[in-house]
Order: sequence, then C-alpha cells, then structure tokens
Amino acid sequence: MADAGHNSSNEDLRLGIERIERLEEEKKGIGDDIKDVYSEYKAKGFDAKIMREIIRLRKMKPDDRREMEAVLETYKNALGID
Amino acid sequence: MADAGHNSSNEDLRLGIERIERLEEEKKGIGDDIKDVYSEYKAKGFDAKIMREIIRLRKMKPDDRREMEAVLETYKNALGID
Repeated sequence: MADAGHNSSNEDLRLGIERIERLEEEKKGIGDDIKDVYSEYKAKGFDAKIMREIIRLRKMKPDDRREMEAVLETYKNALGID
Repeated sequence: MADAGHNSSNEDLRLGIERIERLEEEKKGIGDDIKDVYSEYKAKGFDAKIMREIIRLRKMKPDDRREMEAVLETYKNALGID
C-alpha cells in the first residue's frame, strides 16, 4: 500500500490520544473521590478548608514548615493581626 | 475513658487525611503517566501542544466545536490574522 506508513502513523496518534483520554478520565475519577472524602468529613462536622491546609502542611519538611510559621507570625505581628 | 469520643474523632480525622493523601498521590501518578505518553509521542515526532488541543476539541460537542471554530474564523478575519 502506498500510504501504509501514513496510515500507521495516524493509527499511532489515535492510540496515543485515546490513552491520554483514558488517563485523564481516571484522574478525574480520583479527583471526584477526593471531593467525596471532603464531603463525607464535612457532613461529620469537620472543616474541609482546614483539612486542605493540614494536608498542605504535612507535605512540607518540618523545618520548612516551622520556618514558614515563624515568618507568618512575624508578618502578622508587623501588621497588627492577632 | 473520659475522652474516648475525642480520641475516636481525632482518629477519624487522621484516617480521612490519610485517605485524601493516598488519593492525591494516585492522582499525581496518573498525571505523571499522562506526561510520559506526551513525551513518548514527542520522541516519535508528534507535537504535544497540538495533541492537547485535539483532546480539548474532542471533549466538545461537535456543534459547539463547529460554532467555536466559526467564531474564531470571524475574529481572525476581523483582525487580519490569516
């Protein structure tokens, strides 16, 4: 076939696009699962915004976190936020 | 125990945070898989930016896509972009 190379490249591209679309869907599904956990905890009386903040803090190295907290305190004091 | 209720609530919160952290990690893993597919196709000579655009277009309803493309054409003509 004259354009076998062309066809197989089209097919390859289509497969790649479909792989990405499946992965994007999986990723979206997990994002929905995460939302469900937050909803579940909200329904139990927990504060989802604070939970997000805790997750952010737990991701940091303890030293980095403590330093960030100290700087935050300094700025709060400087601006009279108590 | 005086604070059994308090402890079980703490434990529940910890479990929820850990569930979210595991899901976030899975989500990140899939994001990395997506990046790998793009890299693989880039290495084969495909344009990753155009692939992203194709995925965006395939997500739209055909009618919406055609309308968007028509409006885009109109704006391009209006601005002398050819």
